[in-house]
Amino acid sequence: MSRTVPAMPPLADAAERLRRLHHGGGPLVLPNAWDAASARAVVASGFPVVATTSAGLVNALGFDDHEQAPVDEVFAAVRRIADAVSDGVPVTADLEAGYRLAPAELVERLLAAGGVGLNLEDSDHHGPGPLVDAGQQADRIAAVVAAGRAAGVDVAVNARVDVHIRAVGEEGGRLAEALRRGRAYLAAGATCVYPIGVADEPTIAALVDGVGGPVNVLARPGAPSLARLAELGVARVSFGAGLMRSTQAHLAGLLARIKDGETP
Amino acid sequence: MSRTVPAMPPLADAAERLRRLHHGGGPLVLPNAWDAASARAVVASGFPVVATTSAGLVNALGFDDHEQAPVDEVFAAVRRIADAVSDGVPVTADLEAGYRLAPAELVERLLAAGGVGLNLEDSDHHGPGPLVDAGQQADRIAAVVAAGRAAGVDVAVNARVDVHIRAVGEEGGRLAEALRRGRAYLAAGATCVYPIGVADEPTIAALVDGVGGPVNVLARPGAPSLARLAELGVARVSFGAGLMRSTQAHLAGLLARIKDGETP
Repeated sequence: MSRTVPAMPPLADAAERLRRLHHGGGPLVLPNAWDAASARAVVASGFPVVATTSAGLVNALGFDDHEQAPVDEVFAAVRRIADAVSDGVPVTADLEAGYRLAPAELVERLLAAGGVGLNLEDSDHHGPGPLVDAGQQADRIAAVVAAGRAAGVDVAVNARVDVHIRAVGEEGGRLAEALRRGRAYLAAGATCVYPIGVADEPTIAALVDGVGGPVNVLARPGAPSLARLAELGVARVSFGAGLMRSTQAHLAGLLARIKDGETP
Repeated sequence: MSRTVPAMPPLADAAERLRRLHHGGGPLVLPNAWDAASARAVVASGFPVVATTSAGLVNALGFDDHEQAPVDEVFAAVRRIADAVSDGVPVTADLEAGYRLAPAELVERLLAAGGVGLNLEDSDHHGPGPLVDAGQQADRIAAVVAAGRAAGVDVAVNARVDVHIRAVGEEGGRLAEALRRGRAYLAAGATCVYPIGVADEPTIAALVDGVGGPVNVLARPGAPSLARLAELGVARVSFGAGLMRSTQAHLAGLLARIKDGETP
């Protein structure tokens, strides 16, 4: 990374817009895309930001989630998505736990791919896990934010808190641990905190009230409606691999009909 | 290309199986795939071959059809598709008019990507068009087949005849011109002839009867049913970008519902 601040006005503006949308009048709704065609569809439907789904994106490439895909393929796919939408549309990439890249390289590659935001999870895919130490993760987030600023782009980090989805510790202690981690990640410079796997209203409300910053909730069957999530003060709602899986189910239905001799 | 015949038993066997499936008891049905996930779905649904759709594949990458995509991206996508299915499954790639590659390089890159068959159309995307001279196209097909054999793989060429889709000449003369081209392409070594844009039974029957070899028909709303195409003696039925477009329509529906506040 260069020590001078390069001129990146389109990316800097897009990053600023993305971060601001976490403090708008209602939730930033992100129907996650997995390829250039789905990204174009998201924009054509009037959504202001394209967020990728890591599971959907790597499945479309033929790989499994959890950093099983070659990182070059992942960034190439993000690049195709950013190229497919117009310059002004912020693109935020789900980069899992960062594919073991150092923060400076992670940000450099994200910006080179046209992305201005990233999901970064505290699951430990390559260590004894389940989670990275909270202090280490906060330091990593701070280093990512600093690398972005050094490049002239204030990237939006959506800091995943995997306490609930990884069922860490006793159930009764998870909310407190998620709050502790979420606060640390916001203090480190994250734009938003994403406690994935939380779908019940009391826990969502406690997280929104207690974390002191924007919270991302995964929309899925069984989770509160978008209207209810807005009432609860949720700042960002994403769909993960849900839309990609729904289109795959639609395709499986078409294939079954063709197998039965139909021309759907 | 090496002058010796390299040992490529898996590809050679897959090519042989693909060619044989054009002479089976019923049509070879190809619900065309556009990425690794859709290719896996095709195989999981019990279809013996994966055929790509050029329009669907390049749209998923963010490009338009008709050789607007970088050829490296197209072959990389074919490679991902071949990698995503097991070795024994033949993969045949829609390579449009061959992206201006010389026959030897076209075949070399196809085999390197794991493909054993290709669509090759006689539309002239880069010349005064609409169609390449029939004799030149027959020579190109013969060179592709020869390059495959030199590499030890008897690739299956699905030779598109674009007389009808490009509305070449007077309507009354198109069948005769399609037959003339189809016969020339089969004589040059093509495995199958694909008169795209033909959907009416009399013309399909006349082509099957007159061309003297396997004929590919595009299945689409308005075309005869799969059972009727089988009765007409059609050897190969493909779906083009139809399934990809149907999944995109499904996605557009999901996005509209999300825009309306639903959580589909």
